Amino acid sequence: MPRRAAGAIGGRRVPTRCYSWRPVTETALRADLLGAQHQLRKQGAGPVLVVLAGPEAVDRGNLAKELNAWMDPRWLKTWAWGEASDEERERPWFWRYWRALPPRGLVALYLSGWYGPPILELAKKRCRKAAFDRRMQRVAGFEKAMVDDGAVVVKIWLHVEKKAQRERLKAFQADPLRRWRAGKDRWRRLRRHSAVVKAWKRAVRLTETPAAPWLVVDDSDAARRMERVAATVHDAIHRAMNGAGGAPPAAPAASDGPPAATPAPAAPSPDHLSPLDLARTLPAKRALVKLERQQGRLYKAQRLARERGISTIAVFEGWDAAGKGGAVRRCTAALDARYFQVVPIAAPTDEELAHHYLWRFWRHIGRAGHVTIFDRSWYGRVLVERVERFARPDEWQRAYDEINDFEEQLVDHGAVLVKFWLHVGKDEQLDRFRRRQETPHKQWKITDEDWRNREKWDAYAAAVNEMVERTSTRRAPWTLVEGNNKRYARVKVVKTLASAIRRALKRR
Amino acid sequence: MPRRAAGAIGGRRVPTRCYSWRPVTETALRADLLGAQHQLRKQGAGPVLVVLAGPEAVDRGNLAKELNAWMDPRWLKTWAWGEASDEERERPWFWRYWRALPPRGLVALYLSGWYGPPILELAKKRCRKAAFDRRMQRVAGFEKAMVDDGAVVVKIWLHVEKKAQRERLKAFQADPLRRWRAGKDRWRRLRRHSAVVKAWKRAVRLTETPAAPWLVVDDSDAARRMERVAATVHDAIHRAMNGAGGAPPAAPAASDGPPAATPAPAAPSPDHLSPLDLARTLPAKRALVKLERQQGRLYKAQRLARERGISTIAVFEGWDAAGKGGAVRRCTAALDARYFQVVPIAAPTDEELAHHYLWRFWRHIGRAGHVTIFDRSWYGRVLVERVERFARPDEWQRAYDEINDFEEQLVDHGAVLVKFWLHVGKDEQLDRFRRRQETPHKQWKITDEDWRNREKWDAYAAAVNEMVERTSTRRAPWTLVEGNNKRYARVKVVKTLASAIRRALKRR
Repeated sequence: MPRRAAGAIGGRRVPTRCYSWRPVTETALRADLLGAQHQLRKQGAGPVLVVLAGPEAVDRGNLAKELNAWMDPRWLKTWAWGEASDEERERPWFWRYWRALPPRGLVALYLSGWYGPPILELAKKRCRKAAFDRRMQRVAGFEKAMVDDGAVVVKIWLHVEKKAQRERLKAFQADPLRRWRAGKDRWRRLRRHSAVVKAWKRAVRLTETPAAPWLVVDDSDAARRMERVAATVHDAIHRAMNGAGGAPPAAPAASDGPPAATPAPAAPSPDHLSPLDLARTLPAKRALVKLERQQGRLYKAQRLARERGISTIAVFEGWDAAGKGGAVRRCTAALDARYFQVVPIAAPTDEELAHHYLWRFWRHIGRAGHVTIFDRSWYGRVLVERVERFARPDEWQRAYDEINDFEEQLVDHGAVLVKFWLHVGKDEQLDRFRRRQETPHKQWKITDEDWRNREKWDAYAAAVNEMVERTSTRRAPWTLVEGNNKRYARVKVVKTLASAIRRALKRR
Repeated sequence: MPRRAAGAIGGRRVPTRCYSWRPVTETALRADLLGAQHQLRKQGAGPVLVVLAGPEAVDRGNLAKELNAWMDPRWLKTWAWGEASDEERERPWFWRYWRALPPRGLVALYLSGWYGPPILELAKKRCRKAAFDRRMQRVAGFEKAMVDDGAVVVKIWLHVEKKAQRERLKAFQADPLRRWRAGKDRWRRLRRHSAVVKAWKRAVRLTETPAAPWLVVDDSDAARRMERVAATVHDAIHRAMNGAGGAPPAAPAASDGPPAATPAPAAPSPDHLSPLDLARTLPAKRALVKLERQQGRLYKAQRLARERGISTIAVFEGWDAAGKGGAVRRCTAALDARYFQVVPIAAPTDEELAHHYLWRFWRHIGRAGHVTIFDRSWYGRVLVERVERFARPDEWQRAYDEINDFEEQLVDHGAVLVKFWLHVGKDEQLDRFRRRQETPHKQWKITDEDWRNREKWDAYAAAVNEMVERTSTRRAPWTLVEGNNKRYARVKVVKTLASAIRRALKRR
């Protein structure tokens, strides 16, 4: 098991973690590593995420190459990023990292990873410390979410002194075969060395957690460096297999930090649903006029939003037969078909099951200026998965924070986020179920599952109330829609969506 | 069933196809369309691909919007493309369309689709007719591959006269509410009208096939236009359900064209494997020197290729225990880990199964300058799927052409494509199987399946010979590697790969 130790980064001591590793022969360690990698894949445990960090001068590329030579490159994914592509720029910062997440059973190696861009910006003084600290909080949150899901996160800091690096560059320059490795930009990076190390030190301090600790490795001793890193990865794979128990959904974090907060049997959330006035209604003729006016507003707002690259994400949740499909269609009818997509959320595919549960939603986040409509969403985690016990209590309990964090990233990136809960009374639902059964072309809409869900109405109501209580934030509020009268509900949905986009247009 | 008719495009008559459609009330057609859509999804038939084409002046956006309002937008994906993103530019032209392919059970609507960029380039005289014709051939090939796989492809040409369009723009300009729709660029497009129509006519002529016919719809009559398009989509959905039988892998195309060419029981391919001199060997010491030299060449070549944005795709196929894994690792050991990925091909995921079999390989095509190594590949279609009868004879027989077409696209886009068949003798394989069984840390490498495959050696050998015969083209040749001596094989693989990249570097 890992034990605490202290390592020195750039002369300053920060608490880090040192993994047990035996002084072994290289071949034995290589064989062990290959074996562990194969077992990890067979068990479907993990994944194992390894971040290789250090000042730009450090030769991470070579280390990654060596590690790839030691391990089976089929089950090891190496990621390094340069400039963001335009598709990346049009989405929240973390999209590219979610996109690069390996499924369970694999090891991924990140060169600088999610630390890269903020570090460089701070070192170049292109961002303030407060902004940097907020980004590091996001990083810590991301790593925690991964660990909570059964991943093992290992962060390796490759330490090199400025002086040693200068010597190295000089040696390269003297050798005609390696002279290209001491190009101008390498020298320029060396000049930035102190600033970059300072930024890294700040990053390490802010993201050193029991769940995802930092490990310091001396970069100057190439042989020992490799052995150390390989042993660390080897131990990480074993931790993933022991801690996570191998079966998705994974057991709680393999960390020896404080146990995941198991909230006291929380006081029941205030009842958000009962106060809704379900008697609200609209006469047909007035509803039509109103709907058309609101659709016009929506159309215009979205056209302007598209021109300015403002994305919109609309989430539709609600009781069975509450009218989600109809409300979605009243919105899409007003939108330019080229710039929206509706994402219906059903059972996850096997590829999606092998990832963190938020992965499949990140996949669908659209490009700048587009509207993405989720018909059911990530809230399944705290609704159906909670009530039907597909997720363990600790899993759905921490989901509130994870969801808030996810939505905050969308909003931070400038997206308009609107969330609808379509509410109907229990009697009205019964009426609709019956009508569906009686209308031939609507029979496919009603299944035995709907009837089963109906029996658990109270459990669902409690889950909805807690969901609204804990995820209706100032920046991502819920809109509760009185749905007994479909006309009223549809006008309210379209109006709310249009207004949200218009507000975003005014802000900028 | 569709019956032949003749439609007029821009005054010139071209053969097109007219679908049976009843004069129905709008509501009845809408209900039918929704029902059909639901059935399609339930059966998992199709998919249905609808291309909306026509001169730029035509209001395709509005038509798409209307169709979305008529249908269930959850199961209808609408795609329109503007400028290519940088991620798209770094891959072959068709990558973005493969990326946008719906799984079975869905309908996708493409505004101009794969016709857009070539049409515009021809109209603006930025490409020659010969180049345009080649691109149209590619389009026809793509559509044929889709239809062969059980998809229904419907291409709708919206016809509008230049004069009518001018009137329409004038009407927009006179109406303050719609004036924005008659912006400067609309008038500019109108000036291009004749050139664009001419390009489209050429495209229609070149891509009118029985399997993927064109249908002409008059754009000037909005109500009738919508009815016509909806009826067409409705019929297409039914054709998908009838023709394809619903179950993937789909039955042969639902077209009434000539039956898929069922090649005469082909003369057995020449024996490519037996002439290989399996006695070739390299003494250990010399092999090490040679391997290191070749790895050095590979490293340098790949560094230059990366700088110039030249991608490399390496395919590894071979007998079980022929040493694919070891050869891959000798290559990756020489590469910069940041710029390669190894894609191991195992059983497809359920998402992959719901698509054309080439879809999952398109997914992995890397960005410019990267190396993508496939450990097993699309050749599974004509090897294991053929021998184990996972694919029907017509499926694997047409796969040769599909694969050649796919590889040609990679090479056309400037990628280096290298394909290795690692060959070992039958006795050598037996030795290796036994050694694997005896070595504890290698036991996972050998399964009952390997023994079963071995029994079918002759069937596999025939498949390999036909594969080499039919897919070893001038631009994408196979490299057969004598693999009895691992050292010899590895040096040959690394050397071939390095030389291929170097040749590409010299060409530019």
